[in-house]
Amino acid sequence: MTYQAPVDDILLALKTAVDLDGRLAAGLYDDLDIETLTAVIEEAGKFGAEVLDPLNSVGDKQGSRLVDGKVVTPDGWKEAYAQFVAAGWGALPCSPDYGGQGLPEIAQMVAAEIWNATNMSFGLCPLLTQGAIHALMISGTEEQKATYLPKMVSGEWTGTMNLTEPQAGSDLGAIRTKAVPQGDETYRIFGTKIFITYGDHELSENIIHLVLARLPDAPAGTKGISLFLVPKFLVGPKGEIGARNDVVCTGVEHKLGIHASPTCVMQYGDGDGAIGYLIGQENRGLATMFHMMNQARLAVGVQGVAISERASQHADAYARDRKQGAKIGGPPGEMVAIINHVDIARSLLHMQALTQASRMICYATAGEIDVSHLANDPGKREAAAARGALLTPVAKAFSTDASLEVASTGIQVHGGMGFIEETGAAQYLRDARILPIYEGTNGIQAIDLVTRKLPLGDGAVVKAYIEDLSQMVGEVVASNEPDFVRMAEKLGGAVKALAAATHWMGEQLQSHPEAALASATPYLRLFGIAAGGAYLGKSAVTAVRNGEGSGRAVMVARYFAENVSTEAPGLADAVTGGADAVLAATPERLEG
Amino acid sequence: MTYQAPVDDILLALKTAVDLDGRLAAGLYDDLDIETLTAVIEEAGKFGAEVLDPLNSVGDKQGSRLVDGKVVTPDGWKEAYAQFVAAGWGALPCSPDYGGQGLPEIAQMVAAEIWNATNMSFGLCPLLTQGAIHALMISGTEEQKATYLPKMVSGEWTGTMNLTEPQAGSDLGAIRTKAVPQGDETYRIFGTKIFITYGDHELSENIIHLVLARLPDAPAGTKGISLFLVPKFLVGPKGEIGARNDVVCTGVEHKLGIHASPTCVMQYGDGDGAIGYLIGQENRGLATMFHMMNQARLAVGVQGVAISERASQHADAYARDRKQGAKIGGPPGEMVAIINHVDIARSLLHMQALTQASRMICYATAGEIDVSHLANDPGKREAAAARGALLTPVAKAFSTDASLEVASTGIQVHGGMGFIEETGAAQYLRDARILPIYEGTNGIQAIDLVTRKLPLGDGAVVKAYIEDLSQMVGEVVASNEPDFVRMAEKLGGAVKALAAATHWMGEQLQSHPEAALASATPYLRLFGIAAGGAYLGKSAVTAVRNGEGSGRAVMVARYFAENVSTEAPGLADAVTGGADAVLAATPERLEG
Repeated sequence: MTYQAPVDDILLALKTAVDLDGRLAAGLYDDLDIETLTAVIEEAGKFGAEVLDPLNSVGDKQGSRLVDGKVVTPDGWKEAYAQFVAAGWGALPCSPDYGGQGLPEIAQMVAAEIWNATNMSFGLCPLLTQGAIHALMISGTEEQKATYLPKMVSGEWTGTMNLTEPQAGSDLGAIRTKAVPQGDETYRIFGTKIFITYGDHELSENIIHLVLARLPDAPAGTKGISLFLVPKFLVGPKGEIGARNDVVCTGVEHKLGIHASPTCVMQYGDGDGAIGYLIGQENRGLATMFHMMNQARLAVGVQGVAISERASQHADAYARDRKQGAKIGGPPGEMVAIINHVDIARSLLHMQALTQASRMICYATAGEIDVSHLANDPGKREAAAARGALLTPVAKAFSTDASLEVASTGIQVHGGMGFIEETGAAQYLRDARILPIYEGTNGIQAIDLVTRKLPLGDGAVVKAYIEDLSQMVGEVVASNEPDFVRMAEKLGGAVKALAAATHWMGEQLQSHPEAALASATPYLRLFGIAAGGAYLGKSAVTAVRNGEGSGRAVMVARYFAENVSTEAPGLADAVTGGADAVLAATPERLEG
Repeated sequence: MTYQAPVDDILLALKTAVDLDGRLAAGLYDDLDIETLTAVIEEAGKFGAEVLDPLNSVGDKQGSRLVDGKVVTPDGWKEAYAQFVAAGWGALPCSPDYGGQGLPEIAQMVAAEIWNATNMSFGLCPLLTQGAIHALMISGTEEQKATYLPKMVSGEWTGTMNLTEPQAGSDLGAIRTKAVPQGDETYRIFGTKIFITYGDHELSENIIHLVLARLPDAPAGTKGISLFLVPKFLVGPKGEIGARNDVVCTGVEHKLGIHASPTCVMQYGDGDGAIGYLIGQENRGLATMFHMMNQARLAVGVQGVAISERASQHADAYARDRKQGAKIGGPPGEMVAIINHVDIARSLLHMQALTQASRMICYATAGEIDVSHLANDPGKREAAAARGALLTPVAKAFSTDASLEVASTGIQVHGGMGFIEETGAAQYLRDARILPIYEGTNGIQAIDLVTRKLPLGDGAVVKAYIEDLSQMVGEVVASNEPDFVRMAEKLGGAVKALAAATHWMGEQLQSHPEAALASATPYLRLFGIAAGGAYLGKSAVTAVRNGEGSGRAVMVARYFAENVSTEAPGLADAVTGGADAVLAATPERLEG
């Protein structure tokens, strides 16, 4: 079935979770208007549906392969990437100083959702390039920016992030890759990096690797890590392509999903060493990397939204097409499309509700990042940066956990056909399965939320956010819609549960931090449910005001409130009362 | 890592959920004793670990393929199957009248868990053969039994179940395969069946297909379906292999998982028609099939337990081996095995808790089936049959949903390595993904539970079961263990929630059956959580009585109570209050 960009859902999410109308009116996004944004969504949707979506299963079947030391991407990949660059999609969010279109973060998120919905393996290439651009924008010298950014912004060159080594995954302090200064502002890089997305390919004429490595005299651990730019081909003073650098792909992983996205083992310095250039200060590489990683974490959350959306559309189309069984209470023996069976309708509704809740949370996060860059008032910028930091782990983990649930439910809607690869439903689950893992596992997101984000502003940041959620629920109450009474009660219950669990977390962080860690994972889910529900409730109020009370937004919000938000009190109970049971799980006792 | 049969967990589950000691003492299982049963577990565990487990990833990589019209199984498959037959494992649960060992259902479940834990693709072959044997035992003539059963019981011949057709999946009433009587007690079968597990292969010298088909004058729908036995090779009066029958495999599906288990498209009657023999009465085929399917549903639940167990062991081994990050509060910079990180320990504990809860539910169901066959008192037999019927959909759906969660968590514990196929963790998720689908989707299980099983005995069957669950929780309360106070409260809360939701279901079934269907899925999960928790609580009490209060059983039960049973009140809330929101999801409204 054909992908359709969910224009209405996206705009509703932007209006609800980002106050798009208010921001456009206040001029935060310069001369951007709703028509332009809608056109971006529609055009991106068209490109995704026509160019990327048809390649998605081709990419899955063929995969990217290492042939004679070079990575070969699937049929059609190179042409599609050239079209992507030619259409200017690479340049969407970047600074006009380097040839970008200067659109805000929210526009980038919207476009990224569409690339990843139609072809996540493809979408990863620009995602990584954006990350590298971001790192250069933050910490590169003017000369570095002038040399590399224009071609990266246009997409003619792509970028990679080289963090992981066999012994250094979640713990980057264990990185061993070496950088030896040559006394001429260059360094020679030696080491092996693994799990490097699009580490090699021939879609672009050059690849700009950002690589974490250690100087010879660097302190141990995370405080001795520097960031280097290592181009695949050296670049001359006028941007011309020069000699091949000493970096090669020595292997491509055989993975559960995203087969077309080459996950490379990269060997730096098999000969004299790969020539690299320091980005930012020596031994301060992790600071730049973490800054960039926050953006990447949000982008991964959006990948979750994307897969959820695509899996929902796929299942919906099948459920309208596949006839099986008579409707309860309908004419016996007369088969109906399975969407008419209530348990299937429930499944589709569940998928839609999780998708839209995740979308709201991700867009809200993107909106805060925009304000943190664009607001005139430094206080507003700072407050938005803090809230964006608070929400980022929730956007990443809640949305990607949801994407597994949605993709798996999508398979289930297809029945036996869902298990057959040709159907296409299974690929979404296989592809999505990486999302809770990369850019910091969801367990690490939960720990980040609890130990680094809750303490922001001495707890004032989370407190203010929960108050905003309460206010949104207040709008649902104030709407006086008879159908909204139970919805308001359940949404309010979730926010109260979040407040109670947050209070408990604050106490534990002081007195018993291990307990806070033990309950971090259910706490993050609780956070996502409370936040997602509040946004959906607000969007239902807007829909009623617009005379769309019998539409999808209200249906989705009610379902979420009455069937998902109902989890919240139990989650709070597990958070505040279940930690001791978790802490009993020593390695010895787990063994029996 | 090597698989280890979980002997202690299995015995604890049998003692808790089946009252094994009491039954052995009462002689229900004739001269079976605990030593024999333990030996069966240990020997099966050895066979699984040494023969089947090493073939599991070989089978996944190679898959079974259709070559020149014949299904070729992976390397080593044929030898392993021959060993399986030679060791007598096929004959375990069958009647000694036909060469079986006559062991009870619980012993069969235990062995099946082990085959499926070590190699689910392999385990499916005997599983289907058991199903076919079961159908013949119920409805075959003495002559049919004498002709086919001895070789099927020994495993020299395998069996298949042919239900599904392209237009007839969940709705078997739509079956079109034709059976034309030949006037000589044989029929000619014409039609196409899909999704036929082990529909063709060369592991055995013959394959006995059980096929649903329609007689020429059969009534429409489910009341016009008959069951036929169609051998791959016709069998002479002395059991000798005769001519090739007119049935061929025309395709093998390319699936998400269980690659080595050939899922066949079967063509009956490409020429003169496949010769078939009626099993049971004309037009009564579904009755036999449903009887057998109940047993198969329990077997699928056990496959869920099996995958959960294997995925847990795999993740546990990795978490003890993989070093990453310093322990919070430990020496900085000193990497520890990740099992020492509390969020990883939580994940492993969660996996173990869901595994053992599922096991308890499945074994309890198997125990009821045993009593329904073996008890002297007809009243006891009938009551046990009813309880077994009540629990079967819960055993199937709860355990298989849990297996997805456990296998997915297992991938997560492996971090990035979990996404790499060579690691092996991903295969468990891919294999498990069929479990909620086949033998009746889990949505259908939930509907079966609500609409057919809750009304059994006018509601008395479920009422008595919930009372038994309350009594088990009462034992936890009565234990007076200080550590058990919160556990008892949460387990009791879950049983109360189940009672309330069951009461609501009873009312809806009278007045508003669509609402009951709308809430069937969360109701089944609630049922599983309440039941699993009660069994785990009881096992914790036993452990304390045996002086094992600091052991794994208590740890697992506490975790389940304080971190999973906590979901129950919210589930009851969704069941009883969320149905209207689901029923709003008409096809039009789902579209937007």
